[in-house]
Amino acid sequence: MAHDQHQELIQILHDCAAACNHCFDACLQEEDVKMMVQCIRLDRECADICAFLEQAISRNSPFVPELARVCAAICDACGDECAKHADHHDHCKQCAEACRKCAEACRNIA
Amino acid sequence: MAHDQHQELIQILHDCAAACNHCFDACLQEEDVKMMVQCIRLDRECADICAFLEQAISRNSPFVPELARVCAAICDACGDECAKHADHHDHCKQCAEACRKCAEACRNIA
Amino acid sequence: MAHDQHQELIQILHDCAAACNHCFDACLQEEDVKMMVQCIRLDRECADICAFLEQAISRNSPFVPELARVCAAICDACGDECAKHADHHDHCKQCAEACRKCAEACRNIA
Amino acid sequence: MAHDQHQELIQILHDCAAACNHCFDACLQEEDVKMMVQCIRLDRECADICAFLEQAISRNSPFVPELARVCAAICDACGDECAKHADHHDHCKQCAEACRKCAEACRNIA
Repeated sequence: MAHDQHQELIQILHDCAAACNHCFDACLQEEDVKMMVQCIRLDRECADICAFLEQAISRNSPFVPELARVCAAICDACGDECAKHADHHDHCKQCAEACRKCAEACRNIA
Repeated sequence: MAHDQHQELIQILHDCAAACNHCFDACLQEEDVKMMVQCIRLDRECADICAFLEQAISRNSPFVPELARVCAAICDACGDECAKHADHHDHCKQCAEACRKCAEACRNIA
Repeated sequence: MAHDQHQELIQILHDCAAACNHCFDACLQEEDVKMMVQCIRLDRECADICAFLEQAISRNSPFVPELARVCAAICDACGDECAKHADHHDHCKQCAEACRKCAEACRNIA
Repeated sequence: MAHDQHQELIQILHDCAAACNHCFDACLQEEDVKMMVQCIRLDRECADICAFLEQAISRNSPFVPELARVCAAICDACGDECAKHADHHDHCKQCAEACRKCAEACRNIA
């Protein structure tokens, strides 16, 4: 798997990590933080694995397919949780969209 | 999966990451660095996933089994490569042993 | 800075990262999660930089002193926040102690 | 420091991390790998701190200035080393440019 072939996926992962971290920060500022607990947890999980996979792809890791499979599962979980709050919080809506897009892109290379 | 139950695995992952990073550094100082290229790559892969999994376990991540499966595969690959150099380089021998132990521990929770 | 000389610091960083991640998880389970928001943030900051510095030391990074200076500052901030909750939450008390010890150890090599 | 204000820096860090990881991979494939040892080391250092800072900015970390100062120093070191090989290796030339740009951007917020 060459670095050059995967510019698009790297960008999608980057956008997803940024959306998750932004959502993490924004959830912690919400009045109803108690309702956002699961979202806060999953935002961290998802940001961390996306950032990890980004690095793995760009260093031409031989384990990209295995890591992408796990990343897709984590993106799914985070996207599902954020989707529950999408009507009330724009950061959750944006995060849910980034996660869905990233999960799909990860599955394509897993 | 509780933090308390997994002290032993966390320590094994920690030892493996440290052994891999030490081997990475030592390989780059070897006269025959050309022969160590695959070892250098895999040491980085293995150190990074072990450190990642350590963090995941200690924050009570719901994705520990999936991550442990990937970690076991990476530990196997790194251990196999280091084992090839174990007669010539003590850092490879130590790293191979840490990787085998860690791969087994990861499989137990995967 | 040799890997061998720094076994003790590596262990202190490891213990601090684990305490911070455990506190992060436990804070998110508290009834009064709203009061723990700053603690949750700083636990993540502190766990991440301690894990990063651990890796840097064990790969013999030339930037350990600079990283240790930042790590000490983050440990101080996390320790101060956790100390405010130490009477009510044992995980905060343990985390505050781990942070203080780690901040001091980091300053010694910064 | 708000996530929104820092889109440009996040992208610069992302590009630098990707360039460093690509250079790491390419150096390990070079015939004269012995000459690239310092480059391989610094590529890893620089990729890791850039990725770390990216995450810190996007989660609105209070420690961005301190981390950016360290990141600038590491980008400088990696850029200087890569610049030595820029005539012979295009990946080093590209990495040196990404590092210079990133070091400057980091200094602006440090």
